[in-house]
Amino acid sequence: MGQSSATDFTIRPIGRVESQLTSTVDAPRQGDEGAPDAYLILDFGVHPALDGIAVGDEIVVLSWLHEADRSTLKVHPRGDMNRPEQGVFTTRSADRPNPIGLHRVRVIGIDGLRLHVSGLEAIDGTPIVDLKPVLGSIEER
Amino acid sequence: MGQSSATDFTIRPIGRVESQLTSTVDAPRQGDEGAPDAYLILDFGVHPALDGIAVGDEIVVLSWLHEADRSTLKVHPRGDMNRPEQGVFTTRSADRPNPIGLHRVRVIGIDGLRLHVSGLEAIDGTPIVDLKPVLGSIEER
Repeated sequence: MGQSSATDFTIRPIGRVESQLTSTVDAPRQGDEGAPDAYLILDFGVHPALDGIAVGDEIVVLSWLHEADRSTLKVHPRGDMNRPEQGVFTTRSADRPNPIGLHRVRVIGIDGLRLHVSGLEAIDGTPIVDLKPVLGSIEER
Repeated sequence: MGQSSATDFTIRPIGRVESQLTSTVDAPRQGDEGAPDAYLILDFGVHPALDGIAVGDEIVVLSWLHEADRSTLKVHPRGDMNRPEQGVFTTRSADRPNPIGLHRVRVIGIDGLRLHVSGLEAIDGTPIVDLKPVLGSIEER
């Protein structure tokens, strides 16, 4: 990767995805393209960090796309060979230097450390690295 | 953190933020709360990954909030002691197990590996870990 401006950092997953999707080949490209409901199985150690989460909340799940190729810098968008290659930073390709996935989902059920969520395209076993609320308008913060 | 479900992963920054903001104390809490324009200084090694980016694009910058406390699991929202503590996964607090920042910005200038962007609340020197396009409607993909 040539010169680099900073030191490395360590991601420690906080849980994993449980899903009927088992292969990236079968998975939809985005959550709103027919992705199934799935479960987020959080680690016991981060239980306090879930305090206040509620059914109906819209959240952003950050995942680590563990099957990605981190050396890929250009791709054909959406894998369509008829479209010219573009830099991965202009696409949502999983293959990229730091394969962090962003998934906007809705919480449809909570059972302790298991969150039931709608429309998640990540495959079974995908590590989860963070959860964030979707930001509403400035007045609501 | 107690039991953990997965192995760790290594984030390798792809660049850093150049900003007039030098302290998190002075920084706005979100980009749309009066944050200044700033520069994203990308590493030479990822230059091909920028191919296709254009002035006017809306992008999501993923950063590593290097000054965060990774052991924090509950906070008073927005640092307001009058608001009861909540789990960090229900807030945008920088203090969280994996302190990845999400910043939605607009590209207002490009000079090689320097991207000029509007409204970024990250402080000077913040490591950048990924750039992604904001997704439009399904029809536009």
